[in-house]
Amino acid sequence: MKSYRALEQRFRRIAAVNGALAVLGWDQSTMMPEGGAKVRAEQMAVLSVVRHEWITDPAIGGLLGEAEARKDRLNEWQRANLREMQRQWRHATALTPRLVEARSKATLACEMVWRKARANNHFKSFATAFAPVLELTREVAAAKAAAFGLSPYDALLDEYEPEGRAAQIDALFADLGRFLPGFIDRAMARQAKRPAATEIPGPFPADTQRQVGLRFMKALGFDFRHGRLDVSLHPFTGGVPTDVRITTRYDEADFTSSLMGVLHETGHALYELGLPKFWRNQPVGEARGMVLHESQSLLIEMQVCRGPEFLTYAAPILRRAFRGEGSAWSAENLGRIYRRVQPGLIRVDADEVTYPAHVILRYRLEQAMLSGDLPVADLPHAWNDGMQTLLGVDVPDDARGCLQDIHWAVGSIGYFPTYTLGALAAAQLFAAAKERDPAILPGIARGNFRPLLRWLRQNVHGRGSLVSTDRILRDATGRPLGTAAFKAHLKARYLN
Amino acid sequence: MKSYRALEQRFRRIAAVNGALAVLGWDQSTMMPEGGAKVRAEQMAVLSVVRHEWITDPAIGGLLGEAEARKDRLNEWQRANLREMQRQWRHATALTPRLVEARSKATLACEMVWRKARANNHFKSFATAFAPVLELTREVAAAKAAAFGLSPYDALLDEYEPEGRAAQIDALFADLGRFLPGFIDRAMARQAKRPAATEIPGPFPADTQRQVGLRFMKALGFDFRHGRLDVSLHPFTGGVPTDVRITTRYDEADFTSSLMGVLHETGHALYELGLPKFWRNQPVGEARGMVLHESQSLLIEMQVCRGPEFLTYAAPILRRAFRGEGSAWSAENLGRIYRRVQPGLIRVDADEVTYPAHVILRYRLEQAMLSGDLPVADLPHAWNDGMQTLLGVDVPDDARGCLQDIHWAVGSIGYFPTYTLGALAAAQLFAAAKERDPAILPGIARGNFRPLLRWLRQNVHGRGSLVSTDRILRDATGRPLGTAAFKAHLKARYLN
Repeated sequence: MKSYRALEQRFRRIAAVNGALAVLGWDQSTMMPEGGAKVRAEQMAVLSVVRHEWITDPAIGGLLGEAEARKDRLNEWQRANLREMQRQWRHATALTPRLVEARSKATLACEMVWRKARANNHFKSFATAFAPVLELTREVAAAKAAAFGLSPYDALLDEYEPEGRAAQIDALFADLGRFLPGFIDRAMARQAKRPAATEIPGPFPADTQRQVGLRFMKALGFDFRHGRLDVSLHPFTGGVPTDVRITTRYDEADFTSSLMGVLHETGHALYELGLPKFWRNQPVGEARGMVLHESQSLLIEMQVCRGPEFLTYAAPILRRAFRGEGSAWSAENLGRIYRRVQPGLIRVDADEVTYPAHVILRYRLEQAMLSGDLPVADLPHAWNDGMQTLLGVDVPDDARGCLQDIHWAVGSIGYFPTYTLGALAAAQLFAAAKERDPAILPGIARGNFRPLLRWLRQNVHGRGSLVSTDRILRDATGRPLGTAAFKAHLKARYLN
Repeated sequence: MKSYRALEQRFRRIAAVNGALAVLGWDQSTMMPEGGAKVRAEQMAVLSVVRHEWITDPAIGGLLGEAEARKDRLNEWQRANLREMQRQWRHATALTPRLVEARSKATLACEMVWRKARANNHFKSFATAFAPVLELTREVAAAKAAAFGLSPYDALLDEYEPEGRAAQIDALFADLGRFLPGFIDRAMARQAKRPAATEIPGPFPADTQRQVGLRFMKALGFDFRHGRLDVSLHPFTGGVPTDVRITTRYDEADFTSSLMGVLHETGHALYELGLPKFWRNQPVGEARGMVLHESQSLLIEMQVCRGPEFLTYAAPILRRAFRGEGSAWSAENLGRIYRRVQPGLIRVDADEVTYPAHVILRYRLEQAMLSGDLPVADLPHAWNDGMQTLLGVDVPDDARGCLQDIHWAVGSIGYFPTYTLGALAAAQLFAAAKERDPAILPGIARGNFRPLLRWLRQNVHGRGSLVSTDRILRDATGRPLGTAAFKAHLKARYLN
């Protein structure tokens, strides 16, 4: 027990630095004046180095070995905590300090070039800055592949989604790839026969939007003693589980996008707020991975809040808050707005039906770039081809094509698939929840989310990182992650 | 140069952790929901330990010795930087880790007890929790006295005001102690013969107060690319020189106190913003000490903003902003409000004439407690006696007596005198500034603070910690810190 306890102490200190970094990052995006950027970057770099030094301290290797040898004395949560410590330690120690530093410098430089390249639609300058990032990401993948005995892509994926494997994704995405093109056509045809959505006339004052957002957050179970809502250019969920910071941005001409953004981040926040209290500040107390995290935001946003029950509850609240009049404010019309299907160029603007195509394209391309099959210079061509094949969309320029996302510029390869795996998990979890507790759906229609939150706390949030994503899904839904619930959801929502 | 450069690197990392702590502390007081407190305290404790470990790293002692031996190769700023590194290192290494930890625990506990004791007017519970704080503060004082070759009180004072000495304070305070009682009587008598101040009827919406505060901050030279104004229960100046965070609180029934609070913190902020840019993140680039810091806030608040020139400029702005009417909004009436003299119980509410008496009392009592001459149990009696003698005020209870301030509860002995030394320095600096640049006073009356700010940047802010407070004052005003300018200021303002 002594080695295990010593490890808990060390990981507690690491968690404190992680938490400090989370607050500094939140402040950077929400509060910090522009002139504070350089010094803030240095503060965060210094704390990141401290964290890396602590987690790669050679003493941890010895303690992990000792604790592992006496693991039978640990209870189930402690054993899982030890396993997660090992995982984090192996990820950190797989890389030499030289590689960590080189990657950090290259991605920082590439991110800056990317911002300009996207603004100026200039792929060539991006390609030059991205080449070393890709090369260093390959080195990282190779080092982690060796440490974990995985393929290079799986080794990268494992950072975002522990035990996530390309073989599983390949099967799921192949299934979706067969299903979606035909389904999109059918959904579009069906949509064309229904009345078009009526746009709701604004303006919508930012402060009213904020008040409405806060009201729905509260109803959904967001605990404001442990969190806040603020404004940032790009919405995100930050902070720590005892103090969750979500953000949005307000467009006074259109409230619908910001509102759904707040609800999406609330889904992330409820996961963080519901993590096991006793295991705060320990690896086993953290969220399981990006797939379940995205499943929680998409369950709230896509499964719940874009559905007719939620909109029945929300429509009169919205109408009153914005002093609206007329049928544009009906739940039916809100549904037409919030369930509109339209293939488009931009991933973050995509509806839930076409979104997976954006992800499948990126997943294929990043695998090909990592393996070397796709030279960076050929990326625009491959991107545009894929958009035509998967969505029937012509890409007019790289700014709205392969330069639209930040992920690759900062070396995030292996992240994209978690968005769509999250969508699949959200559909599967919500279907199971509704089946297990028949009070959930009528509750939503009345603005009572307690039955839903109770089920999520028990079956997802409260389990932390005790078991794998796969185990959580099997326990909660009776089956491994699949496409069936997602396809059933799409059919029910878009073809009926 | 190699040892010196290595020290710069180390102190740069320490500054990054200090900066991170400043942002975390600001967030704690302004943004953090209550449920985040416990984890935040842990984050800050871990970073404080990191900072302490880094600054007491035995390698620093060696590097300081090497750099000192080759100091002739350093330029003036580098030599001063080395001297400040030595000072910080000696303060940190004077204490054993056991003493640091014991003091930290005792003060944390005592602060909590003090909050309740003050609310419930219960001195006995405070005394019990304060006894170990005082004992540990004595240990700290003894350890630092040995390390610096100073008296225990001077060793504590040196933390807040480098090279500050009780002998100097004794002389200044004796002079003030002779001057003030008679002066207060004369000022009150004179005040009684003038028309009384007319109260300005509210309410004053918090948002309007904020807009007015921002306007004056901007006029005074606060650079919003490098800072913000927010709300907290107790106003303070935080952040780092590239990102200065000041706070206030709003009373919608009375704007005058919040406004002067914003102007006071703006004085602190201008000092931070004006510190030498090239020496950011190094000890020599930091503010010189609490005396000069308080001199800058009091120069702006007391010398400038409560004076007739500023109020002439501000009165019409305030009247328009709050849509006020009538003579209550005249510069003359604002002056009667802002220059009212009234002996009272509470230090933070005191006017500039009676404020020194509050400080002199605390200074005498904390010296007596530190030396052991005053047992804690006798504090209320000594306090109430002193208030009667110095201000002619009867203290009705300890909540409004010796329990009113947080300082002693958290082990801050040696801090109080810097408030009044700051007031003396403010008067002396402003008198010199007006004499050296005749454009300053007419500028203020027109809302043009550039001549004043230029003088302060050159003579105070931009010097950082290059030389001592005494040297800065001699260079800027031609004489050491004295009471003459302060007394002349009081006479001019309150007897004419």
